[in-house]
Amino acid sequence: MRAMHASLLATAAGSLAIAALALATEPADKGLVSPIYGVSLPHGYRQWEVIAPAMEGAPLDELRVVVGNATAARAYRSHTLPFPDGSVLVKLAWKQKPSPEFAPATIPGAATTVQVMVKDARRYAATGGWGFGRFIDGKPADEAQHRTCFACHQARVKGHDFVFTRLAP
Amino acid sequence: MRAMHASLLATAAGSLAIAALALATEPADKGLVSPIYGVSLPHGYRQWEVIAPAMEGAPLDELRVVVGNATAARAYRSHTLPFPDGSVLVKLAWKQKPSPEFAPATIPGAATTVQVMVKDARRYAATGGWGFGRFIDGKPADEAQHRTCFACHQARVKGHDFVFTRLAP
Repeated sequence: MRAMHASLLATAAGSLAIAALALATEPADKGLVSPIYGVSLPHGYRQWEVIAPAMEGAPLDELRVVVGNATAARAYRSHTLPFPDGSVLVKLAWKQKPSPEFAPATIPGAATTVQVMVKDARRYAATGGWGFGRFIDGKPADEAQHRTCFACHQARVKGHDFVFTRLAP
Repeated sequence: MRAMHASLLATAAGSLAIAALALATEPADKGLVSPIYGVSLPHGYRQWEVIAPAMEGAPLDELRVVVGNATAARAYRSHTLPFPDGSVLVKLAWKQKPSPEFAPATIPGAATTVQVMVKDARRYAATGGWGFGRFIDGKPADEAQHRTCFACHQARVKGHDFVFTRLAP
């Protein structure tokens, strides 16, 4: 009886290990990865460290915050370029609206996009080592929107490893 | 000999415990706490979770991000008001400047102030349960600047436990 329990437990542990591996290596729903790049929304990014806020004027009129995972944040703090593999940056964006409580202030309205950059020098060799994902309501935007990412980053911030955002001092 | 070692170790451990207690309960340098409230810059706040960004117009022209410790972030996510004791909010602020690389964007320039709110309903009973600290280059601003904090929060956001910032969606 004890042996059977042990065997069942071992089987259950094995299944859990396989399930954990699957979670770590591929998204649960392939519809939730970006076209072209296969980038998904990273787990727990809402708790990541602030790299910098930004405001984008018309026509988008958005407030934004770029956050980074620990690998990206360490690279920023140590002025490491290019960013090492495993660096992930996420830009959260909201429509901006006037604060109803303090006139000089502009605050976040509705969430708009969540945009992701994942560094993997080999996998994304054709795009400066970065994979891109642009999500709206948790779902990836279409392929046309993903075709524009790298060209703009390449044209404007090639000298900063294709990343616009600097660590806010 | 062994007894003496044990005694020395016990003494050393006792001293360490006292030192740790001192670190936890009072700042190393009393010059680094805010007047009136005795609030210091909390350890590790730069890695805390984003509550929301904001932009403040003229004359300050600042970009800001409010971050919260785990207690504050949990309270926000569960819509808990008033915030529980131990909640700490930190507002980081920077002068805003145009991005040299992307015309529609405004990005952080020089850091200006770091402002702290600490919830302790008993200690700060006279100011809605909140202690305030306003820091410039890591040093607390003068008493006159701290005299204005609560009156403004009380007049404008009493119904949100004296806190302006809402969790960005």
